Amino acid sequence: MRDGAAKSLTSNIRPLGQLEDSFIIATDAEGLLLIDQRGAHERILFDKYRRLEASRRPDSQSLLVPETFDLTPAQAAAFGEVSDELERLGFSLMRLSGRTVAVRAIPADLPATEARNLLSEILDTVDGEKRGRARESLRDEIAASLARRAALKLNTALTQEKMRWLIDHLLLTSSPTTCPHGHPIILRLTKRDIERGFHRA
Amino acid sequence: MRDGAAKSLTSNIRPLGQLEDSFIIATDAEGLLLIDQRGAHERILFDKYRRLEASRRPDSQSLLVPETFDLTPAQAAAFGEVSDELERLGFSLMRLSGRTVAVRAIPADLPATEARNLLSEILDTVDGEKRGRARESLRDEIAASLARRAALKLNTALTQEKMRWLIDHLLLTSSPTTCPHGHPIILRLTKRDIERGFHRA
Repeated sequence: MRDGAAKSLTSNIRPLGQLEDSFIIATDAEGLLLIDQRGAHERILFDKYRRLEASRRPDSQSLLVPETFDLTPAQAAAFGEVSDELERLGFSLMRLSGRTVAVRAIPADLPATEARNLLSEILDTVDGEKRGRARESLRDEIAASLARRAALKLNTALTQEKMRWLIDHLLLTSSPTTCPHGHPIILRLTKRDIERGFHRA
Repeated sequence: MRDGAAKSLTSNIRPLGQLEDSFIIATDAEGLLLIDQRGAHERILFDKYRRLEASRRPDSQSLLVPETFDLTPAQAAAFGEVSDELERLGFSLMRLSGRTVAVRAIPADLPATEARNLLSEILDTVDGEKRGRARESLRDEIAASLARRAALKLNTALTQEKMRWLIDHLLLTSSPTTCPHGHPIILRLTKRDIERGFHRA
């Protein structure tokens, strides 16, 4: 079993079903593939967020009741550094008095329940050892955090159509074989691996 | 990827589809399975032929026109040693003058086109180095030859029902994980193998 090499991926991938409601089992002309459905969705979302930032046309959902939360002093110091990036991704944020922030809108894919944790996570990241690094790497990190919070969970049953959608969109991303955190998304069992397993090669 | 251990096989195996029209892709509670459809069918037929021999109620198909063929001197010498066994498996054979044999019926599962090759193969085997060995091992060998000739071929598309049938009947055999020739029938990819592949374990 090996990581799927990008060059051998074509649109002839045919999903057969899921394992543990977490991995898509598929075949193509080369053999068998296992696709981490969560990693695939993270990659799709990550690429989308990076595009959104560039296009400056974020895709938002407004919260009926704006949510407020209190930043730690360190988070408050980091806030200025990332608020622009967050707005570009679809957040609408307002600094209130003191260290309180109101969230009026969040990116369209993000479950509202994840908004608070995501903001904390991003502000803590910026506050950490990585302050002052390149803006591009900060954007990557923010997009990766957002993708992780918004991606479908493991143990989610998928219809045939949803599996098809994930595979088709994954193949259009910048890196269909690794998730934004660097883990493999696709494992491959080639025909040769299989024949060897059956003592045929 | 490892050979499927018999102890972990249960009837919860769920076929999803085929790879290369040759291997059944299935899942169970332990992970993913690949089943060599030809090996599985050989194992099912082998067990059936061994039972038939014991029951002495062969399952035959009569040939509309008996087929005759001429034995080599070595095959003719071997004929007497195996004709009883062959009759028990569903052959109806008649020794004609000289070294000619007429085949009037063959085992029910055997394609008629394979009958001639099968008889030659069995007679050649007996004639070989193995003459005079235990009767049981001769019976095993004949049943294995017959199973190989009668088993479904690779590159055969199977319906969901046929996959289900193969799996259910394979699980009832004396040795669901190895074919009569000793090759593995089932390869397993455990959940742990898969998690390790995705760098999760």
